[in-house]
Amino acid sequence: MLELNAKIIKIKTGEKSVILNETDAGEMMLHIHDRVSLKKDLQKIIAIVDVSDSMVERGEIGIYEDFLPFFAVSDGDAIELSVATPPPSVAFIRKKMKGGTLNKEELYRIVKDTVTHSLSELEVAAFLMAEQYVGMNMDEVEHLTRAIVETGRTIDFGETVVDKHSIGGVPGNKVTLLIVPIVAAAGLKIPKTSSRAITSPSGTADTMEVLAPVTFSLDALRKLLMDVGGYIAWGGSLNLAPADDLFIRIEHPLSIDPKAQMLASIMAKKLSVGVSTLVLDIPTGKGAKVEDFDTARALGNDFIELGRRLGIKVSCGITYGNQPVGHTVGPALEAREALLALTGKGPNSLIEKSTSLAGMLLEMNGVTPKGQGQAFAKDLLRSGKAYQKMQEIIEKQGGDPDVKPDDVPLGKLRYVVPAPIDGYVSSINNSAINAVAKAAGAPLCKGAGIMLHAKIGYAVKKGDPVLEIFSENEQSLKNAQMIALQRGAFVIEGMLLEELPGF
Amino acid sequence: MLELNAKIIKIKTGEKSVILNETDAGEMMLHIHDRVSLKKDLQKIIAIVDVSDSMVERGEIGIYEDFLPFFAVSDGDAIELSVATPPPSVAFIRKKMKGGTLNKEELYRIVKDTVTHSLSELEVAAFLMAEQYVGMNMDEVEHLTRAIVETGRTIDFGETVVDKHSIGGVPGNKVTLLIVPIVAAAGLKIPKTSSRAITSPSGTADTMEVLAPVTFSLDALRKLLMDVGGYIAWGGSLNLAPADDLFIRIEHPLSIDPKAQMLASIMAKKLSVGVSTLVLDIPTGKGAKVEDFDTARALGNDFIELGRRLGIKVSCGITYGNQPVGHTVGPALEAREALLALTGKGPNSLIEKSTSLAGMLLEMNGVTPKGQGQAFAKDLLRSGKAYQKMQEIIEKQGGDPDVKPDDVPLGKLRYVVPAPIDGYVSSINNSAINAVAKAAGAPLCKGAGIMLHAKIGYAVKKGDPVLEIFSENEQSLKNAQMIALQRGAFVIEGMLLEELPGF
Repeated sequence: MLELNAKIIKIKTGEKSVILNETDAGEMMLHIHDRVSLKKDLQKIIAIVDVSDSMVERGEIGIYEDFLPFFAVSDGDAIELSVATPPPSVAFIRKKMKGGTLNKEELYRIVKDTVTHSLSELEVAAFLMAEQYVGMNMDEVEHLTRAIVETGRTIDFGETVVDKHSIGGVPGNKVTLLIVPIVAAAGLKIPKTSSRAITSPSGTADTMEVLAPVTFSLDALRKLLMDVGGYIAWGGSLNLAPADDLFIRIEHPLSIDPKAQMLASIMAKKLSVGVSTLVLDIPTGKGAKVEDFDTARALGNDFIELGRRLGIKVSCGITYGNQPVGHTVGPALEAREALLALTGKGPNSLIEKSTSLAGMLLEMNGVTPKGQGQAFAKDLLRSGKAYQKMQEIIEKQGGDPDVKPDDVPLGKLRYVVPAPIDGYVSSINNSAINAVAKAAGAPLCKGAGIMLHAKIGYAVKKGDPVLEIFSENEQSLKNAQMIALQRGAFVIEGMLLEELPGF
Repeated sequence: MLELNAKIIKIKTGEKSVILNETDAGEMMLHIHDRVSLKKDLQKIIAIVDVSDSMVERGEIGIYEDFLPFFAVSDGDAIELSVATPPPSVAFIRKKMKGGTLNKEELYRIVKDTVTHSLSELEVAAFLMAEQYVGMNMDEVEHLTRAIVETGRTIDFGETVVDKHSIGGVPGNKVTLLIVPIVAAAGLKIPKTSSRAITSPSGTADTMEVLAPVTFSLDALRKLLMDVGGYIAWGGSLNLAPADDLFIRIEHPLSIDPKAQMLASIMAKKLSVGVSTLVLDIPTGKGAKVEDFDTARALGNDFIELGRRLGIKVSCGITYGNQPVGHTVGPALEAREALLALTGKGPNSLIEKSTSLAGMLLEMNGVTPKGQGQAFAKDLLRSGKAYQKMQEIIEKQGGDPDVKPDDVPLGKLRYVVPAPIDGYVSSINNSAINAVAKAAGAPLCKGAGIMLHAKIGYAVKKGDPVLEIFSENEQSLKNAQMIALQRGAFVIEGMLLEELPGF
């Protein structure tokens, strides 16, 4: 036990750490990331040690503003410091690291301690890395999912609500902007909260934002759903599954995506808003998140089983993921293409994919008999009913319902990548397409992105435009152009692939 | 690209991060841990994004003092911000995470970027976790070791120097305090730098510090070695393998100890001071770091092979690790016991272990023929030559050479744990012993620790003292006492282990 003088540091860090003078820490045998217990009168709190040789003098303890609501101290107050044992969740994380199986209570503690910042970022990272390498069984995934829901806010719309979700990984996947109005036009309630792009050139929320605002309070969303039957909003500010946001914040820089965490993350967000029926899009193909059918089927079955345990009816659509959906990538370009498709002028791949997934939802909810969902969805599209619903949604969300595809502003700077030879487009590189669109400025610059003038199987002549890059900044355009060439955004091959000289 | 106004934050963090206003970051699609490039006139630097809703206003960028030597800016200066790609080492870490093999250049970049803080703590954690789960082959371990040496300082003593090292894990392992004077008395040069305790109740440096100062400059160490032939110093301030210190800082809170990292860490520290011959102590037994002989042999062979590649002759001693070495745990208690052993009154286990390891070093360096090293070491001990050398070392390091074992002050508060029944000590729990000694205050309170009055195989009567706890603080003594009882520091069993009633 040791007495130090408080020094309030007017910074909010979001982490529960205190700062010790480097020499003091050395003498106390305390290391960065160790836990200490702070005591003043009857108040007691646990903190994680950080060390500095300039922020606090010897004999001082730096206390960030974050603590003050829980631990009322002023500059100069005497604080008793002692070494604290880590919370039990640290032992549970170690159990998983060593290959163990965690029970409901153990997973709940880990998730709870993540949300309350009682675990450090490094400890959460260890948990996620262990999930990645050790894996989890379905019981663990179920407990994890429920813990993520229980540690956040939940919404009860008081109605049966349906949803669609894509696990992501394929560029240009603007199907949500068609599925929501189709399904809502069929009379189902579809409260669609989406994310912004984390690693992709455009999240659904980014694309929808081109047409209307996407940030709403919970009450506003409730009213939107009752009035129109559907919305496309950003889910980020709703605090629905705060643990999940914290997990993603660590997964992203580590570039990991443990399967158990993906299952739990997606299903927790559905459970927290009371979704009863879910269609899950699993884009499958070279360069997508899932590359082969066996993996896609196994993943789909895991989602179905997890849904069964949680009381959510799940169907999965394994969809073609070898190349972008439709011809555009980037918020404005995608919003435009979605509007075109809603008014009967969109590309086939986009319409086929959207109506087949929407059709599954219609069948699952008894709107049509089995086998007739897609045809019904196409009818709603052709008849203009889906477009009319989308106009309603745009209007109620505060956008201009009469916006025409051509009204959507695109990046003014353009660069066309031509076919280098006569031949056929034999492949398109999803990850290069994403990289080019991001380099061009998407999703930050709404008008930046890519238009594909040719897709797999198209015959092209040398010099024909294959890829068009849109940007609003010279340097970004140049970077995007360079990446398109360096990374080989597409491959053109003749019919003759190899010549075997016989003489 | 975006322009923000610099706001200097008078804090040194040791991390290369800048702070963006939360709303700004959201609009720029920047997330915590993303990398950005900062530009002012001709200066350019890469930083990692942190986000705050209180430290910086919108339009500001918070720049820690750490940056100023590399990036000269003042409050209010306009800084151009753009998204930066991560250093190539991030891709190399991902390669290892996916099970790949890293080459020399790739490992060098990872280590170099760790030392320059170009990798975030999370990225370094991902590397270490991948090492733990994916593993590394011997080529990779060699490259890693050399990279750790090349990114730090090296010492050339201009002489052949030998060393001993224990991989740790067994309490009370004060053998270094015997081996160094024995080996130096035999005419070899042994520049022993040790660590302080990280998770144990006493590191060798903590124990030696009871007898003499242990912190020296490089020049002072060089002089000590020339004058006396050996020293026992703290290696922490010498910047010999800074990468290793940073790796340990992450491994410790994660409770991981990847084998490749252990090999590289130990051997890098030897290579950096030009050790030519090394005896490695691998304590093996229940509750030690290595629990069985097969694992110990495999690990020993890895050290020998790595040594061969680095030009260091390594021999390994697989030693008895089922219970503490000698009878004491804790800095003062151990220093006392070492002095007793040097003056002919120490416990057998300590003398046997120390002389056998010292003997191996003598044989490896041709001081004695093969098979006669231990006898020679025992002679040096019995004749008082080793003690005389230790007195010289203590004196030259600034301690009192005439200190007697009884002069070493011990914790004044004591608690004796008695045998609960008549019987034999059948086991001693190493990790419980460590926990009790730490709870009692070791290594921070030099006098805190444990004395074992009985060890495995001893016959005891109910009420006989088995374990004695030393402390300088009532509360610590109580905690230690509670842990001793709860965790079962020892087991006493009668000869009759089970009764099978037949009637």
